[in-house]
Amino acid sequence: MADDTGIEALIELMARLPGLGPRSARRAVLVLLKKRGQLMAPLATALAQVALAAKDCHVCGNISTDETCPICANPARATGEICVVEDVADLWAMERGQVFKGRYHVLGGTLSALDAVGPDELGIPRLVTRVAAERITEVILALNATVDGQTTAHYIADALAATDAQITTLAQGVPIGGELDYLDDGTIGAALRARRRL
Amino acid sequence: MADDTGIEALIELMARLPGLGPRSARRAVLVLLKKRGQLMAPLATALAQVALAAKDCHVCGNISTDETCPICANPARATGEICVVEDVADLWAMERGQVFKGRYHVLGGTLSALDAVGPDELGIPRLVTRVAAERITEVILALNATVDGQTTAHYIADALAATDAQITTLAQGVPIGGELDYLDDGTIGAALRARRRL
Repeated sequence: MADDTGIEALIELMARLPGLGPRSARRAVLVLLKKRGQLMAPLATALAQVALAAKDCHVCGNISTDETCPICANPARATGEICVVEDVADLWAMERGQVFKGRYHVLGGTLSALDAVGPDELGIPRLVTRVAAERITEVILALNATVDGQTTAHYIADALAATDAQITTLAQGVPIGGELDYLDDGTIGAALRARRRL
Repeated sequence: MADDTGIEALIELMARLPGLGPRSARRAVLVLLKKRGQLMAPLATALAQVALAAKDCHVCGNISTDETCPICANPARATGEICVVEDVADLWAMERGQVFKGRYHVLGGTLSALDAVGPDELGIPRLVTRVAAERITEVILALNATVDGQTTAHYIADALAATDAQITTLAQGVPIGGELDYLDDGTIGAALRARRRL
């Protein structure tokens, strides 16, 4: 307990971040209070600036501080490939992989009759338009390997059937460093079906 | 990777908080980016306000947004008892215990010849003055049960020997809900020596 309404309010806001509970939020605020000049003030400024400037890229749906995100604005990335992901987090994860050099389309979710999420909400018509307009040769469906993700992937593949673009998905198999004994049966089966010559 | 310098800088600042690494900081920033209005902007404002207003209480060393902290400013807490703690975190922990109703003295560390922390750095002369001026009847030394904490406790007890205040320390023993089998030998020994009639 900080016994101070301003500090208590700050702790409550911090506790709403993922990975921080009430206890660790209090600990984080204490560290911030001790580093008011070096850490707390710069963090406040950075948060305010990003909160003001951050916007969804009007082309791909990535979040950045520019109208067009750095990936869409980079001419070197006009490779004719679009990678479709569910979420901005997945886009960032793909970028960390450092293999994909094309552009993205962020759906912002998966098709869901229950939550009334249809193709329009996910920007699928816009994706079809982009594939024609940007002369896309390959659309990589990097959706999560869940039922919802795969249903959405099949819908997108159907929607793009009339275009010339090739539709691909990420390979399924044993993760790098993975031990067979700890893998679920579905993954082992998929890896076996997709086996390749050494 | 967010591929955006403003967002990357924010992630780096967030990763310096305890309990958040580079990975969880990225996840926290993504949640903030999605809740720009409800969470990110209020958090930025709260941080800026607290960073500006927070100060060390000139009486006890607690951190609050007032010149005199709410505990020192509360006349109901002039009980003639001062609890000496190492850190503001310990003060907050004591307050969560909801048993102590007096006031505090935050040392800000422990005596350390190696780090050149002497009695003046810890405000021990100021504590001696307070004990006389506020007619303190009991000084509770709530220092950590470490070698440094106990050394500092003994030094403070000596410094206060000339005053009329009684010097006490927290009891050592089995924690509430603790299982003997998992306790260290020192704690079991201390609990046995300090045993009491049921």
